[in-house]
Amino acid sequence: MQSSLRLGLAGLGTVGASVVRLLAKHGDDLAVRCGRRISLRAVSARDRTRDRGIDLANVNWFQDPVKLAANPDIDVFVELIGGASGPAEESVRTALEHGKHVVTANKALLARHGVELARLAEKKGVSLNFEAAVAGGIPIIKTLREALAGNEITRLAGILNGTCNYILTRMERERISFDECLKDAQRLGYAEADPTFDVGGFDTAHKLALLTSLAFGSEIDVDQIFIEGITSIGLPDIEAADELGYRIKLLAIAEKNEGGIEQRVHPTLVPKTSAIGRVDGVLNAVAVDADFVGKLMLVGPGAGGDATASSVVGDIADIARGTALNTMGRPAEQMKPYRKSDVESHAGGFYVRLSVYDRPGAFAAIANRMAERGISLESIVQRAGRPMADQPNTGSPAMTRQVIMVTYQTTEAAIREALARIEQDGHVSDPAQFIRIEAM
Amino acid sequence: MQSSLRLGLAGLGTVGASVVRLLAKHGDDLAVRCGRRISLRAVSARDRTRDRGIDLANVNWFQDPVKLAANPDIDVFVELIGGASGPAEESVRTALEHGKHVVTANKALLARHGVELARLAEKKGVSLNFEAAVAGGIPIIKTLREALAGNEITRLAGILNGTCNYILTRMERERISFDECLKDAQRLGYAEADPTFDVGGFDTAHKLALLTSLAFGSEIDVDQIFIEGITSIGLPDIEAADELGYRIKLLAIAEKNEGGIEQRVHPTLVPKTSAIGRVDGVLNAVAVDADFVGKLMLVGPGAGGDATASSVVGDIADIARGTALNTMGRPAEQMKPYRKSDVESHAGGFYVRLSVYDRPGAFAAIANRMAERGISLESIVQRAGRPMADQPNTGSPAMTRQVIMVTYQTTEAAIREALARIEQDGHVSDPAQFIRIEAM
Repeated sequence: MQSSLRLGLAGLGTVGASVVRLLAKHGDDLAVRCGRRISLRAVSARDRTRDRGIDLANVNWFQDPVKLAANPDIDVFVELIGGASGPAEESVRTALEHGKHVVTANKALLARHGVELARLAEKKGVSLNFEAAVAGGIPIIKTLREALAGNEITRLAGILNGTCNYILTRMERERISFDECLKDAQRLGYAEADPTFDVGGFDTAHKLALLTSLAFGSEIDVDQIFIEGITSIGLPDIEAADELGYRIKLLAIAEKNEGGIEQRVHPTLVPKTSAIGRVDGVLNAVAVDADFVGKLMLVGPGAGGDATASSVVGDIADIARGTALNTMGRPAEQMKPYRKSDVESHAGGFYVRLSVYDRPGAFAAIANRMAERGISLESIVQRAGRPMADQPNTGSPAMTRQVIMVTYQTTEAAIREALARIEQDGHVSDPAQFIRIEAM
Repeated sequence: MQSSLRLGLAGLGTVGASVVRLLAKHGDDLAVRCGRRISLRAVSARDRTRDRGIDLANVNWFQDPVKLAANPDIDVFVELIGGASGPAEESVRTALEHGKHVVTANKALLARHGVELARLAEKKGVSLNFEAAVAGGIPIIKTLREALAGNEITRLAGILNGTCNYILTRMERERISFDECLKDAQRLGYAEADPTFDVGGFDTAHKLALLTSLAFGSEIDVDQIFIEGITSIGLPDIEAADELGYRIKLLAIAEKNEGGIEQRVHPTLVPKTSAIGRVDGVLNAVAVDADFVGKLMLVGPGAGGDATASSVVGDIADIARGTALNTMGRPAEQMKPYRKSDVESHAGGFYVRLSVYDRPGAFAAIANRMAERGISLESIVQRAGRPMADQPNTGSPAMTRQVIMVTYQTTEAAIREALARIEQDGHVSDPAQFIRIEAM
């Protein structure tokens, strides 16, 4: 048997503690599988006194993760600190510069510095693995980077944030308002005290940026992602979508089209009967369309210490077995610059909800504005005089009616123009709500 | 760039032709991803004259796949001939003995000779990869062998035969008889002229045998699999399951319990709302339960030339990149002998359908027989006097009623005993139908 693979682990939060427990529980089996032992040599965390329920008696303790990363007694640096800069970035960079493999769960770091770090890893001839950074326990990185190597990927769509999916699922099932669901999610530990990063779609965007790069061989470019969170989704939308046969999901979508690559994160109406429409609660899912394999979908836990630890250790096991891959599945120098496709050119169906003043001619005026832009309507639902649960308070709710329209395929530009005109015409009391529809 | 990886491909059926097309289409991208070109040097197939729509002008032709396997000009032998013995076995063995890597889609070969071939591959220091042998384009082998290396798997359940799933889906959706669905499947090319291998559950069993070995580190043992096909499933069962909130799927299940490992292939009632219950048509799916990752499910195309070629080329790309893994995820010598758990000890709920003579006391007698064995009934549906679509012709159908019972958790032994007694009592016109229920 080869000499053992020596780990230094920085960050002993939920995931870090699970990794330590996993290595203790399955150490013998991992040694059989990998042909060598995986041995935790050193850790770094802020609070040394906290009881994490794990045995660290034989492990060296470093106050400073950067010192740990440079330590000559480790072969692999496992970064579970988090954050796009600061100690996480500094320690990962240090580890790579010292010729150590790196395993990280840090999506923010890679979304910001992935290409550069990949280049550094290649230069040093080491691995930079990050299965745990996207979709928790789901092996989507390995699937894109290795299993689908023979495919041209045309599109991927994912539910990548469990917090948002939990909130949307509860809103739909129990008809509870967004705010109430969010509070429950916070109480259950699914959402942070400041939930902006999750519900604003930014966490999803970081993950999408990595998947896009892997899928299309382009450089990571998180700043070019169109991002819309779920905070504007109200019960009227949930209810209307349900009636129309849809569910609302926060989807991350990347697709190739003539103009380049489109990356978007936004609430999306998906058919209830579609596979991704049925992914409920805190689960994550990624659906891939590719020229040879066709459609593939992976569903599993997107977060949680144990599930994420499974991915971290999968990455470590690859290193122990000697598997060497370029970080993004191809040499960093071969990655093409990201060419953004104009999201306004996105074509598809749209869901539109308007609060229309209840007066003669209003509806005709709206229909005309849609027709002017060549937008055909697949269905129209007008809800007469029934103010809905969390309808925005417009002062005199009885005076408006909710008009819900589903369009046939059109462009986002056409919809935006038509809605701008409708708002200018003064027939609606509030800005229009519009949500993209994906056939899936 | 390293020298190119030279392939010899035996078998130019649907999958073989797709592999050739894939390599032609994505050769440049594969070279970037793998750091070396993958170059098809030679092929072997029975009929040299057939037009397969692929360009083989620069490729050597071998009449005999065994000679191709021994050819010094190839590094990887790709076996797409099929069959557990004969030329497939001989050529794979020859390739390994000559120190060549092997990529195969041949589930029957590996189910029969996998352990021995794995041992040979290890001895020669080469790879024996078989992603395409199970679930077509779904990367379940990679997931079990690599991604989940840090997990103890407790259970896996899969829909591994598209033909069966197509038939069951159509029976349910259109209420068409088994025979008619099978004929359509044959017409559409989903089923062979002799469908026994598919509908009898044997194809599924071969695939399960490989997954079990990967999941539990046990030696492959296809002969110990409990196999029940779908030929006994009638429309009355499909209809009753539907009413009770279930779908019938041919599942392959492997799970660890105290007695050993249980491997079974049989029709199963799964909740309509479960993820696996929603896998329709020719799709395949594999659900894995493991201690750290929790529940993971992969869904995708289980057959078809292109989807299978995706897996074949994924395996080739791994070899091109230098990834070296033991065939079954651990050294063959470390695989434990398969210890079978007694399937009769299987505990769970059961669906029972009886054709009961319509006479006083019959139902009470049946209920007593169930009670004697401690079997509690969750629900009972008695269908009065309505002979159903494809109910077996019992001579005087008006004299029997269909009684459908769903039991609470009990053992398979208890159910079998109770049903034997009920049949002895003479209250039923036909052997009882019973189908296992899985909560999923």
